[in-house]
Parts: sequence; C-alpha cells; structure tokens
Amino acid sequence: MIGRLLVSCQDRPGIVAAVSRFLSEHGANIVHSDQHSTDPEGGIFFMRIEFQLKELDDKIESLREQFTEIGKHFEMEWRIESTAKRKKTAIFVSKEDHCLQDLLWRWKIGELVTDISLVVSNHKDLESVVKPFAIPYYHVPVTKETRHEAANSHLQLLDKYKVDTIILARYMQIIPPQMIESYKNQIINIHHSFLPAFVGGKPYDQAYERGVKIIGATAHYVTEELDQGPIIEQDVQRVDHRHQVNDLKRIGRDVERMVLARSVQWHLHDQVLVHGNKTIVFR
Amino acid sequence: MIGRLLVSCQDRPGIVAAVSRFLSEHGANIVHSDQHSTDPEGGIFFMRIEFQLKELDDKIESLREQFTEIGKHFEMEWRIESTAKRKKTAIFVSKEDHCLQDLLWRWKIGELVTDISLVVSNHKDLESVVKPFAIPYYHVPVTKETRHEAANSHLQLLDKYKVDTIILARYMQIIPPQMIESYKNQIINIHHSFLPAFVGGKPYDQAYERGVKIIGATAHYVTEELDQGPIIEQDVQRVDHRHQVNDLKRIGRDVERMVLARSVQWHLHDQVLVHGNKTIVFR
Amino acid sequence: MIGRLLVSCQDRPGIVAAVSRFLSEHGANIVHSDQHSTDPEGGIFFMRIEFQLKELDDKIESLREQFTEIGKHFEMEWRIESTAKRKKTAIFVSKEDHCLQDLLWRWKIGELVTDISLVVSNHKDLESVVKPFAIPYYHVPVTKETRHEAANSHLQLLDKYKVDTIILARYMQIIPPQMIESYKNQIINIHHSFLPAFVGGKPYDQAYERGVKIIGATAHYVTEELDQGPIIEQDVQRVDHRHQVNDLKRIGRDVERMVLARSVQWHLHDQVLVHGNKTIVFR
Amino acid sequence: MIGRLLVSCQDRPGIVAAVSRFLSEHGANIVHSDQHSTDPEGGIFFMRIEFQLKELDDKIESLREQFTEIGKHFEMEWRIESTAKRKKTAIFVSKEDHCLQDLLWRWKIGELVTDISLVVSNHKDLESVVKPFAIPYYHVPVTKETRHEAANSHLQLLDKYKVDTIILARYMQIIPPQMIESYKNQIINIHHSFLPAFVGGKPYDQAYERGVKIIGATAHYVTEELDQGPIIEQDVQRVDHRHQVNDLKRIGRDVERMVLARSVQWHLHDQVLVHGNKTIVFR
Repeated sequence: MIGRLLVSCQDRPGIVAAVSRFLSEHGANIVHSDQHSTDPEGGIFFMRIEFQLKELDDKIESLREQFTEIGKHFEMEWRIESTAKRKKTAIFVSKEDHCLQDLLWRWKIGELVTDISLVVSNHKDLESVVKPFAIPYYHVPVTKETRHEAANSHLQLLDKYKVDTIILARYMQIIPPQMIESYKNQIINIHHSFLPAFVGGKPYDQAYERGVKIIGATAHYVTEELDQGPIIEQDVQRVDHRHQVNDLKRIGRDVERMVLARSVQWHLHDQVLVHGNKTIVFR
Repeated sequence: MIGRLLVSCQDRPGIVAAVSRFLSEHGANIVHSDQHSTDPEGGIFFMRIEFQLKELDDKIESLREQFTEIGKHFEMEWRIESTAKRKKTAIFVSKEDHCLQDLLWRWKIGELVTDISLVVSNHKDLESVVKPFAIPYYHVPVTKETRHEAANSHLQLLDKYKVDTIILARYMQIIPPQMIESYKNQIINIHHSFLPAFVGGKPYDQAYERGVKIIGATAHYVTEELDQGPIIEQDVQRVDHRHQVNDLKRIGRDVERMVLARSVQWHLHDQVLVHGNKTIVFR
Repeated sequence: MIGRLLVSCQDRPGIVAAVSRFLSEHGANIVHSDQHSTDPEGGIFFMRIEFQLKELDDKIESLREQFTEIGKHFEMEWRIESTAKRKKTAIFVSKEDHCLQDLLWRWKIGELVTDISLVVSNHKDLESVVKPFAIPYYHVPVTKETRHEAANSHLQLLDKYKVDTIILARYMQIIPPQMIESYKNQIINIHHSFLPAFVGGKPYDQAYERGVKIIGATAHYVTEELDQGPIIEQDVQRVDHRHQVNDLKRIGRDVERMVLARSVQWHLHDQVLVHGNKTIVFR
Repeated sequence: MIGRLLVSCQDRPGIVAAVSRFLSEHGANIVHSDQHSTDPEGGIFFMRIEFQLKELDDKIESLREQFTEIGKHFEMEWRIESTAKRKKTAIFVSKEDHCLQDLLWRWKIGELVTDISLVVSNHKDLESVVKPFAIPYYHVPVTKETRHEAANSHLQLLDKYKVDTIILARYMQIIPPQMIESYKNQIINIHHSFLPAFVGGKPYDQAYERGVKIIGATAHYVTEELDQGPIIEQDVQRVDHRHQVNDLKRIGRDVERMVLARSVQWHLHDQVLVHGNKTIVFR
C-alpha cells in the first residue's frame, strides 16, 4: 500500500536524514521523493515522499502519532495520507459543459482517482450531462437576492457529502469568503486566460481586443481576491488575425480542460504545496 | 525579379479580380498571395501579393503610376515594392547583448535581408560586439538632462542613414513622441514579458512574484503608450517553482531573441500589416 | 450563402485573374482566399476560395457548368461546393473511446459541422457511448476468417449511408485496398505516434523503449502502405524518465484526440488538398 | 561550497536514510535532491544530491573515502564532485556555425560553466569564429585515407587538454569506436531531426519528402550505432506546406542550438544519468 508524507518547515540540516530514518525504521520503502527549498541558505523546505508500507491503513494512526515528535522538533507542518482514502470532490458548473464533460470522462476511465460526490450548478442545463454518471446534481440558483441563501445551501451540501476538494469547472459566480476560508487551498478554479493578463469577465473578448498572438488558461486556488490565487498550472495555444472571438473561445475550451484536468490530478495526488501566493508542484 | 503589392481598403466585390487582372496584364505572375478581411460582411480588406516580373526595377515607377487608378477606384492604401531594394535598419541597444548578437548573426548568414546601417546605444558596452561586423556604433548617452539633446542626435542619425526600420533590441529608454510619429509602425520593440501581463519595468521580477508557470516575450510596434502597441509576435517557455528570477531571465533571453528575430524578418518581408492596434501577419 | 471553390493545376500566369473575374462576374464576393504554388517557377498551383453568393444552392449547377471552360483552359482539377451541403461521416472504432467521445462532443456542440451517419466497430464495447447521440452503431466483427465478409459489410454500409468521409478513431484493423481506393483521401486515421517514428503496432511501447523525451500523434489520409499516407496534422507533448508506458498512453490520448479533431475539422471545411504524398492545409 | 553526490544501485529500503545520515553527520546540508526508481518494486534507484559544505575542496578526498563503505554496502555506482572543479570541454565542428556560436556566447556570458579547452574541426572555415574567444582551434582534416590518423590526432589532443566532455556541434564525421569507448556518455551529439525519425544524413530533406508538420532536433550521447544513443533532450517546431527544405534548415537551426545548449548545461551540472540506452534527466 502506498502512503504520502508531506512536510514543510524552515530549512536546516538533518531534515531528510531524520525523515528517511523514520520511514526506514518503520519498514516503509521510499518509492518517490521530491523536495524543494525556496532558498538554499535558510529558506522554507518542502518535501513530498511516496512510500510503500504493508498494512498501511492499520498502521497509519500509530505512524502519525510517532511522527509527531519529528514534526515538533523541526516545527513542521506535515501530514501522512494513505492513497487508499480517496478525496471527495464537488464540481461546480454553470452552463458551459466542456470542463465538466472532460472531468467526468477522465474520472470514468480511471484517470482521476477521487469520489465525485456531487455536482452543483446555478443552472439546470447540465443535469442531463451528469445523469448517466449517477452523480447527484444540485441546482442552486444564485441571484443578487438569493446569494446569501445559496451560500448556505452550498456549505450544507459540502458538509453533508464531507467534501475535501471543490472544482470550479467554469462556474461563473463569485465564491463567498466563508467557503474560501473553510476550504483553503482546496478550491480549484479554471480561469479562461493566461493570468495575470485579462483578469475578470470576458477574457477572450479582452484578448481579441488586445490582438494577442497566444491565448491561455490558468488553474489556481481560489482566494478572496478575484483571479489572484496561487497558480497551479497554465497552458497556451497560438492564435492569429483570422480568429474571431468565437474562435478564441473554441480554441480556449481545449486549453481550459487540459489545464484544469492536470491541476485536479496533481491536487488529488497531493503534488501541489502552497507557499504564500505560489505553488510548488512536484511533477 | 520579385515585387510585393500591399493593399488595404474597405472590402467590396471585385478587388481581387481587378488587382489580379492588373498584374496579369502587366506580365506579372503571382507567386504568393494572402488576403484577410476583418469581417466578411463589409470589413476592411488586406492583401499582400508577391509577384514575379522581369525587369521590375525598370518598370516599377510606371507600374505604380498605372496602379493609381485602381487604388483610387477602391480607395485603397497601397504600395508596390521591389525586393531588390533592401530596407535600411538601425538597431538600438543598451547593455544586454543577446538580441543584438542574434540579429547580427542572422544578418551575417543571410537570414535577415536588410542593410544594418548603424547601431545606437546609450552605453559603450556593446561597441566591441558590433565592431567585427563593420557597422557604425554610436554612443548617445541619455540622462534626464540630455534627453532632448539625445532625441535630436537620434533623429539626425536616422536621417543621415536614411533608415526605414528601427529595432529596439532591449533598448531600455523611452522613445520620444517625435520619433514614434516619424517612424510609425517602423519601430519594433521586444518586451520581456507575455503582454499584456507585466507591463513596464522588471517583468521577470513581476513574473516571479506572481508565480506564473509560463513566461514569454512580445515583439510589438512602438506607440506612445508604453508596451501598448500592436503585437507582432509572442512566444513562451515553461518555468516552475525551482526557477529563481535569474533563471527566468536566462530562459527568457532565448524566447526574446527568437520572438524579435521572427518579427524583424516578417517586417522586412512586408508581411506585417497594421490595423488599428492589431497586426495582420501573413506568414 | 457560402461556397467553396477548390482548384489545382500547373502554375502559369493568369489563373487568379481568370478565377476571380469569373466569381466577380457571377456576383460572388470572395471572403477568404488561399493559394500555394509548390514552386514559383512552374510548379503546381493550389487555390481555395470561400465566396459569398446569394441563392448559391439554386445557382450552383449553372456555376459549375460555366466554370468548366476555365477549368479546361488551365487543365484544372476543380470543384465547387456549397457549405449548405454537409459531408456525411462514418466513424470506425475498436475499444478505446477517447477519440470517439471527443468527436461526438464536438459534433454535439456544433464544432464539427457534418452528419455523423453511423459508427462502425469490430467490438460491441462502445455501443453505449454512441447510444445517447441517436447514431446507428454497427458491430461488424473482424477476424482472419471473416475479413473479406467484413469488408463487404463495411462497403455496403458506407454505400447505404452515402458516406463521404471515414474517420478511423483508433480503429485497430487494417483497411482493405478496395475501401482505400473507393474513398481516396477521404479516410482519416489517427496514429498514436509522431510519424514516421514508431510505425505499426504498440508505438507507445516503442517510444518508451527508445527513451524519447517527446511523444506525438499523427493524423493522415489512409493509403495502401501502413502509416505512410499524407500527413494532415501532428502534435506532441513532453514526457520524461518518470513516465511509464501507461503514462505515455494517458498523455498520448489527449494529443491524439486534439490532432484528430483538428484534422477532421479541416477536412470537413475542404481546407486540406493532397499533392503526391503530402498535404496542403489552408488554415 | 557546493558538492554533488550521484548514486545508482539496486533499489532497496534504507538507501535515502543511509545517504542523508552520512551527509548530515559530515556537516553537509542538502540543498537539492532528486531521485528516481525505474520500478517501485525492485528496480534501479538513481539519486542526485546537491549539498552545501564548508571547505568542501579540502574535505572531498576524505568524504569519498568514508562514503566507500556505504557504496559497498548497497553495491552502488557513485561519485562525489565539487562544483569548484569545472569540466573541460572540447567542441567539434564542421562548417555550420550556429551551434558553435551559440555555445561560445552562452559560455562567455556565464551560462555554461566549463572550460572550453579547444575547438576541433575537419575544416578551416570556423577558425575566425573561435579566434576572438582565445580558444585554440585545431584543423584536423578527415578523409577516407586519413581517418585513422585523424582519430589518433583527436585522441592526443583530448588527452593533452585532459578533456572530460566532447560536444559535437554539427560535426559531420563518424566518431571512431575508440573515442566512443574512452569517453562513454561524455560525447554529446546534436542530430538535426526528431529521433528516431530521419536517422542518418540529410534529415531535413527526408522530413520535407515525408511532409511532416513538425520538425525537431535531438541531443544524445554517442554510441557505436549511429543516432541510436541515449537521448538527452528533444524539441520541435511547427512547419507547413509553404516551407521548402531551406526553410526547414533555417527553422531547424534554432531548435538545434536550443536543444544542444540545454543538454550541455544539464551534462555540465551532472544532471544526466544514463540507464541502459535511456537517460534520467534531473531538471
């Protein structure tokens, strides 16, 4: 069975030695390890270790208890996870289906290892897309007047399904602060531009107006400032003078779904660590 | 001999027929033709034709005279050029040599077909780079106090050498309005970011701060608004959390010189037409 | 209404003039035009014109008749099509669904303008994928013994549905010569490698063995020689030493469906012309 | 001071723990670490560690001695290097200058940290390119008759200058087996195609004939089989039907020099490990 150990702390000598000895002494074999220090001379140290350990699920609690000492000694933020325990995911959508379709397809063929617990939308349009996958679809309308009420419904749903991870798959509504706070670095949004260019609404129209030669998409964790959260992944595609706004949207759809899918997969595999307003992605 | 006919006008039926008949009647064979209409239903029409015509240089003046009628009829902006007449180019640099080196090398091996008439710099540093190419190097210092004087020197030099095209190969000074006006859509700048992201100074520092996963460079014609002119070409390169600002600069250098070289080549071949604040690049 | 005129012939002066005068005289406005000559000095000339003409569908037969003279004069291969008449498409699949899913989704949202007349497979597996789209699904098993019989069934089906275009969306069977002959340059295959590297079976295993740093996919017209037909489009994606064969397959799926979708779209828009064993793609 | 420890051995539990404890006990701080296992269940394990250690150059010999025990215990291949000791490089060229120019420029501005000890060529053409850099240039003609003699001259030169690394920067001659054997995984060649496509001579002509839509370049270690050695890096660029062979060569030059430069840099930083006929590149 495969487990993951994630660590971040002030960099100083002996961390790798202590952690690897701990795993070795507990019979775990390191199958993959990544580390990063923001500054070789006294920055923040990040590490992600994938290890193999028989009967991990029986041992995981005791493993965590015993790691506490090391964690305290190095003043780490850390967690140990078993890959046997899948993350629970909620997908939020509005009317555009391309990201949703792509995520559902990848999930169905086993590319995305997660439990998709529910789909939430402010519209009814995509219910028929979700139906064949036997995933509950909740239509929660959001208007100026019902915003507060909708936020409560959302939180209740997320709570009911014990959701870990929220994917905004072209969900065109502002996420209220309470949800952002409750799911810090757990809400992934796909923005349909190459951030920080073209923040806010209608990025393809903005891109067309500016006459850029390349368009892009950006997946990021949601923070209170719109389109300003830590970037997980970006990608681009060439365009030229022959492309009208609708062409940019068509070409952009493919970029968006690729970027979102990659980001979601990395998140599900605990490959993304957040440091300030940036991400470390151990690929 | 190869000539080029460039046309823009209000789109309406019969333009291509009239122009191609004109060329055919004058014994010219169209070897390449590109056209673009900003809107099939009554937009602006752009056309670039490469044609072969014996003794073009003897005939070019009479060709121009006779085309005037068609030009008037369709209210065209147009020009007929012979490839035998090379554009005259000035390169402006400051201290960074990568774009300059690259342009000089491409020019020497015959990739860039132009006369590089002079190199102008606000520093002495790159004189030794230019020397082996036997191109005059002018050191024109620019300070707050001498800005006006420097602008005059620049204009006199450009005038003296009958320069058509100005390449800002990482020239880190503001171009004064008079020069921009005199060389409209003839001044190419390379900006070391993926515009419109990271306008202004220190774009790599800005990119590092924002934590982007892709950096880029943008070549554009210079207009009075800083970094806002028509974009000719852009390109990008992946970066990640391991890259410090210096790495972004190193990786960016390669993107900058590629993007600038492509843009300069298209400009020299009359492949770039400007429409409002955008370009049409006939590749 | 929009029509398309496609022309190829020996290059010589006057072709563009004659064709554009013809269209102009018949009241058609050229909205887009592309041309290419394999050699400015006497090569083969290719042209694709999109024109606007009121009541095109009533006039198309008489237009064709009258163009015959020009066609004869320049010894052209040519055709005039109305975009009102959609191509009829058959999709062939085996067990992998990613290309099929992608094509069906693009078709449903209106990206691919065609009538998908039927899906043919040597397996039953993907019937449930096709069902919601209300497209007939034919299961035609192919074994060594039934190969001849299957070929006949295929031809009958294609004939019954008056199919123009055949898309092999990861169909893992050899196409018999008779079908290739009957649908020359109308059968598009997606090969899961960057041709000409890794011809034949198991290209991802071959790529893994060779240790390439980039994998790709290739869409091409099917000819009698396996994986040797005219290439329509290729694209690539980076891989590295951490990727096992299954990762290459996963990453490759995304490249395959993008490359196939682009190729199909260009084919449906008559943007692909074949010259010898190469394609001219007017993008 | 920065040191590098490179390790490969049969994977088994405890390697990371042992190595990191060793470094920790000797006062070294790990600033960067990468590892890879070809198979989590008993494959080959590769590790590259960058560590900081004061007075490394005084201690390096004793460090190596003391590491021997660990090396024996795990049956490792290993080496410990100081970044203070630069690799000595020989560049081999023929007539094309683009890769040479690029390497020299990167070396001069400090991107490539190495001593370029000499340039060897079978032609005199590029002597003037090298001269300004004050690097010895040896003209060693190679003909069928003098092949054996030339090989001896090469080996003597490499020996005289104590060369570690040989860069074939478009050197168009076969490397004799003796040199390959003496400099195993130390000879980097740039091949002007996307291997394994277009092995051997005239790859751009081959690519043009096949009608590919993307061309590439490949840097690899030289082995006895032509163009079959472990691939270090590849990159590509789009082309289309408008590009003649000369255009492919022009576009390819830019790909070649980028790919070669990246590969050389990784090699110089000990980031490339060879496993069978593949590379592990720790980026």
